[in-house]
Amino acid sequence: MTEMAPRLIQAARAAEARLAGRATPFLFNAWYIAGFAEDFSRTLKRRTILGRPLVFYRTTAGAPVALSDRCVHRSFPLSKSKLEGDTIVCGYHGMRYDEGGQCIEIPAQKTAPQGICVRAYPLREQGPLVWIWMGDGEPAADLPLGDWATDPAWPASNAYFHLKASYIALHENLLDLTHLSYIHAATFGTPDYAFAPYEVETDDAAGRFAVSRSVMPTRLPPVWAKPTGLEGRDAARIARSEFSGPSVHTVNVRFYGLDVSEAERPDTQITTAHLVTPETATTTHYFIHHGRNFGQEDESITSFMHEQLTAAFMEDVEGLEAVEAMVADTPVEDRYEVSVASDRAGVAMRRWIHRQAEAEAG
Amino acid sequence: MTEMAPRLIQAARAAEARLAGRATPFLFNAWYIAGFAEDFSRTLKRRTILGRPLVFYRTTAGAPVALSDRCVHRSFPLSKSKLEGDTIVCGYHGMRYDEGGQCIEIPAQKTAPQGICVRAYPLREQGPLVWIWMGDGEPAADLPLGDWATDPAWPASNAYFHLKASYIALHENLLDLTHLSYIHAATFGTPDYAFAPYEVETDDAAGRFAVSRSVMPTRLPPVWAKPTGLEGRDAARIARSEFSGPSVHTVNVRFYGLDVSEAERPDTQITTAHLVTPETATTTHYFIHHGRNFGQEDESITSFMHEQLTAAFMEDVEGLEAVEAMVADTPVEDRYEVSVASDRAGVAMRRWIHRQAEAEAG
Amino acid sequence: MTEMAPRLIQAARAAEARLAGRATPFLFNAWYIAGFAEDFSRTLKRRTILGRPLVFYRTTAGAPVALSDRCVHRSFPLSKSKLEGDTIVCGYHGMRYDEGGQCIEIPAQKTAPQGICVRAYPLREQGPLVWIWMGDGEPAADLPLGDWATDPAWPASNAYFHLKASYIALHENLLDLTHLSYIHAATFGTPDYAFAPYEVETDDAAGRFAVSRSVMPTRLPPVWAKPTGLEGRDAARIARSEFSGPSVHTVNVRFYGLDVSEAERPDTQITTAHLVTPETATTTHYFIHHGRNFGQEDESITSFMHEQLTAAFMEDVEGLEAVEAMVADTPVEDRYEVSVASDRAGVAMRRWIHRQAEAEAG
Repeated sequence: MTEMAPRLIQAARAAEARLAGRATPFLFNAWYIAGFAEDFSRTLKRRTILGRPLVFYRTTAGAPVALSDRCVHRSFPLSKSKLEGDTIVCGYHGMRYDEGGQCIEIPAQKTAPQGICVRAYPLREQGPLVWIWMGDGEPAADLPLGDWATDPAWPASNAYFHLKASYIALHENLLDLTHLSYIHAATFGTPDYAFAPYEVETDDAAGRFAVSRSVMPTRLPPVWAKPTGLEGRDAARIARSEFSGPSVHTVNVRFYGLDVSEAERPDTQITTAHLVTPETATTTHYFIHHGRNFGQEDESITSFMHEQLTAAFMEDVEGLEAVEAMVADTPVEDRYEVSVASDRAGVAMRRWIHRQAEAEAG
Repeated sequence: MTEMAPRLIQAARAAEARLAGRATPFLFNAWYIAGFAEDFSRTLKRRTILGRPLVFYRTTAGAPVALSDRCVHRSFPLSKSKLEGDTIVCGYHGMRYDEGGQCIEIPAQKTAPQGICVRAYPLREQGPLVWIWMGDGEPAADLPLGDWATDPAWPASNAYFHLKASYIALHENLLDLTHLSYIHAATFGTPDYAFAPYEVETDDAAGRFAVSRSVMPTRLPPVWAKPTGLEGRDAARIARSEFSGPSVHTVNVRFYGLDVSEAERPDTQITTAHLVTPETATTTHYFIHHGRNFGQEDESITSFMHEQLTAAFMEDVEGLEAVEAMVADTPVEDRYEVSVASDRAGVAMRRWIHRQAEAEAG
Repeated sequence: MTEMAPRLIQAARAAEARLAGRATPFLFNAWYIAGFAEDFSRTLKRRTILGRPLVFYRTTAGAPVALSDRCVHRSFPLSKSKLEGDTIVCGYHGMRYDEGGQCIEIPAQKTAPQGICVRAYPLREQGPLVWIWMGDGEPAADLPLGDWATDPAWPASNAYFHLKASYIALHENLLDLTHLSYIHAATFGTPDYAFAPYEVETDDAAGRFAVSRSVMPTRLPPVWAKPTGLEGRDAARIARSEFSGPSVHTVNVRFYGLDVSEAERPDTQITTAHLVTPETATTTHYFIHHGRNFGQEDESITSFMHEQLTAAFMEDVEGLEAVEAMVADTPVEDRYEVSVASDRAGVAMRRWIHRQAEAEAG
């Protein structure tokens, strides 16, 4: 019978105590994706974010609105109520709320008291994305995602996954490129990927953590080879995956054929924003915004890559859900995890989230 | 960003601390509806009341019986056992219980010890209704529902809903007539109803709380207009909704055409007993006994009203279940509720239940 | 209203405090059935035993392997990973474990640290059965089931039930033959069985507890009468049911016709090993190995008895699941159970498990 030595288990536990995990409070003071533009419409929509049930709609003038979904009177869901102009009339006793969350009419009273309201959350639109600020602090001036997301030179497609797993585990997944050779063996992983050299960057002050991996020479899987015209050719595949806050993870990949001189190489890039919004401690809204800086006129590339990538990200979803189920099935005393060299960026990121959560709480 | 002021939230919480809610113990010393007469038959039936699993049957002489459903030997459900004469023989090891709950045979023993029994609960039949007394105190002499429920001058129909919501929330729903204009907009609510004047009666000593609302002139919705012959006529609609204990809520509605002189007005009344039996803290057996004092010979009125009202009460069920789900989905720290003017009767009723529960406990 | 006297309830609770129940820790230091031989193959299989998720496979040389199913790196299930030769390569980041549980490759590192491993559990094969040792103590030298299980003179069949009930309740069921007349009224019980005299043996030092019951004259139910040729004849039915540890319960039944002189009676025996492996506190892997010492050449007897007994044991499964659901549905303060004379062996067995669990813990 083998088993981990007690001192190794204790060391693993001591390290984990400083890392963000399922029990770590959410970071509220950050911009998160609330949804895509079309999630805000004249039809009321419910979505839970950072554990809080919200209702989404748009005013008649087109402004997106996010309110607490719970009528403060008797807890009826506003998302099952009636949108009248820019207001919601509660489907139970008729309390009317304006787009700022203020209760402006109570049927059985002459006047609505000033102070009754549901919380309204600041929103910002950025192209197809709608960001929300859930915290008590002043919203940050800048959105966390760069301009490329709205740049016409970067044609893009979007996807959404409801992930039954921790958002921390998703971020960790994105900061470890080793898994491409295993979870994505059938899609965009290749066997050489896991063993390729990689670099880690950590910037605790800025809350930025990245891994880079250059694989060359390599043969690209169809998802990359076909749109870049590198099928059957020795190529370079240079990926950089960067966590830049609890809601955004950007993966940039560059490709070129090794049969082309450095001067003639095209600047072919694919960038995927993995937009991560915790729903609960163990479920996550996982939004994808996926763009490229080439083939701008060719919509068939967009649809080909969208289909291929959706299949690949679904592999992450299934893998992370298997992990989440395993954690739930494991007796608490057996739940320690051991980190290895390739976890350096992920561990630094989890330590940072842990410290940020402590700072928000204290 | 709007949000309720901390002092308003604190005030709401302080008020709620004195109101009955999901955490308040049940009131055991009261008559509750166990079921309709046909729920007691020669086929064993299981039903949980105030959190306790029970088994129902009738003796060969026709007397209804309610016993604890759990064989005290090894917890087998008597409702999955065998009815032999007036006794139940446990389907696991053959313990035989009589209709008083006494164990009178243990197969592998010569004699059954005197003291082994399952609890038997007092029952009373009242026409189509069977009442049960769950408490340790002496059963009250009088049943809580008036004689009209068995009066042939009041033809009636019955319905049952399994409500996945708190019985307190159901009582509060019944004491607030504002909601008719919203939840019942498609059935027996009309828009003017929520804004009509109302009166509140509270009698803490007797545990009676009522709201009355006169709406006139009004046009009746089909459910009332058709049987009363008031279609297309200006009418008065005078409703009184009275809580008279944790198990009974009576709603009486009178109607007359305003084109008829006071002397000639018929005494047209419709009375609905809403019979409320908690199953668990968040699920409720909701029985309806619905009668009228006119059209005694016309069974088509009975079936028309039964169908219409069942649809309307289903709206309450769906609304209350949406509230219950919202409460469950809301983080505990956000669960405060704010009361408004029209809640006066309901709040007084919840305060009374809270005090009664404290009295039972202490 | 009847109800158990408070002093009887208190006495029942005091007695139960010394008996093993759902809250008692498992006994780890014992051989349990992990599965049948075919559960160990070249296809990875997941099974949870004593609360611990495991993965099963066979090496290329045919040796059965049971490892902890959770990759210690990031909790991915090895049962959803890849079997390569005698090793499992984790489906997430490629950690490779050998059949001893040792991690021998980590893709992004030159070498795998010595100490990283998943727990490997000792196994022993015994004919169609594979035993597992879950405890920290040294595996017992002897397996708990006698040689008849692999003796060709005892043709046998096997069955498996996933039982959603406590393993303690299953053992108690097996030590009380009274229930045959009730739960098995339609299969191998007969009405006289419950009332027949019985003997109890208890051996606390050895952890052996048995009940014996001789029923004669009796008419055998078809499951026994047909294979033994005793249809329509007065017969003796002599059963002995023995608990010999938390994982094994053996029921031996002998039959003979009363119209045959003692000298001429055939030695006709049927023996069933009830092999009990807790999955969780309220679910159990219930394996059956069922043999006989006659009709060795007649496979139709095997299939007839297998079919009949599977139906009968399914009655136990349904009965025990009804008990488990009842316990879950009963308020904690009402969960006391009262023991009767025929529980003597079962109660002694539960007291023994309770003491063993205390000894393991302390």
